[in-house]
Amino acid sequence: MSPNPVIPDSAVSRLATYLRVLRDPRVEGRQHVSSAYIGDRAGVSPDQVRKDLSHFGEVGRPGVGYDLEHLIGHLARIMRLDRVQTAVLVGAGNLGSALVQYTGFGQRGFRIAAVFDIDPQRVGTNLGEVVVEHVDRLAQRVEELGATIGIIAVPRWACQTVADAMASSGLRAILNFAPAKIEAPEGVNVRSVDLARELECLAYYLPG
Amino acid sequence: MSPNPVIPDSAVSRLATYLRVLRDPRVEGRQHVSSAYIGDRAGVSPDQVRKDLSHFGEVGRPGVGYDLEHLIGHLARIMRLDRVQTAVLVGAGNLGSALVQYTGFGQRGFRIAAVFDIDPQRVGTNLGEVVVEHVDRLAQRVEELGATIGIIAVPRWACQTVADAMASSGLRAILNFAPAKIEAPEGVNVRSVDLARELECLAYYLPG
Repeated sequence: MSPNPVIPDSAVSRLATYLRVLRDPRVEGRQHVSSAYIGDRAGVSPDQVRKDLSHFGEVGRPGVGYDLEHLIGHLARIMRLDRVQTAVLVGAGNLGSALVQYTGFGQRGFRIAAVFDIDPQRVGTNLGEVVVEHVDRLAQRVEELGATIGIIAVPRWACQTVADAMASSGLRAILNFAPAKIEAPEGVNVRSVDLARELECLAYYLPG
Repeated sequence: MSPNPVIPDSAVSRLATYLRVLRDPRVEGRQHVSSAYIGDRAGVSPDQVRKDLSHFGEVGRPGVGYDLEHLIGHLARIMRLDRVQTAVLVGAGNLGSALVQYTGFGQRGFRIAAVFDIDPQRVGTNLGEVVVEHVDRLAQRVEELGATIGIIAVPRWACQTVADAMASSGLRAILNFAPAKIEAPEGVNVRSVDLARELECLAYYLPG
């Protein structure tokens, strides 16, 4: 399968939402779903649903909608969510520990298969079901595990070094939790989780 | 000041980005900034900048742009980021501990002033600069601290109960990290951080 086209973040996010809507147990048993049904549950207009899906060749039949099973399969392949994606995490502090134990990842098909740190006090200790390894072993373990995604949970001063090491190890996608901007290494997609941004957006709705 | 109008999430997020761009030390010393300057650094078109700002009565002078100091002041008031916003956090596990120590909040004007838990083993222990308190004290402490934002870092089964307690305590904005949907109590704005969604969006860019 060829690489996916670069589309706006918001569109990628909507596609992920559609897939979640379609995989919801409440949809089970249906043979077809309409763009109105998907849009209603995804919080977007039916027009937007039709437009987003048409980019990937999906056209619903008027009055009938999309074939449910086919659409799930197609969207899952596009989103690379038709398989378990294996991630490795660097940084075994509080945030790293929390992420390893975050049940939301496993529910959605992501597995954190290895955790790395540089601190001798952490290396060798258990974190959930994995044993923290020294970050020197990153490249070897990424290959052994067939990992595709790197998760960064180190202090801000270390995040660029870790991102570069992840890129050299062959990881092609990085989720960064450090509160600092990372220069994306060539050929690597980096997404930074900006937790303060979430609070900023909430503050807008506070009383003046 | 009256409540802010309800606008799309994406627009709130852009306004927060504009404010961050304008507060960047590199802008210091300028008297005016153009929509092109803001847009370039925010990653949106100058048209979008003009449109977003015009909703709040801001109109730049052609060929000159916006008065920098005035625009920062106005945007900060709109976003309620002209003051330190005090948050309280419920859930002193790994995630809660990580959030208390997350330096990104303080840098952006948010202070986690109190942490609560229900576990007797955690109550009374130190977490960064605060002592974990029993969640029974939530309402009293929210009032004492003048807190406005509640952060939820408890397991999914407990998050709705905590959200309801936060609402009763007078908090008007909630940031939820539990991987479950919360029914927003009346008059309360709830934002859920969906960490798995971030990974889903990254996966789109992985090789097929």
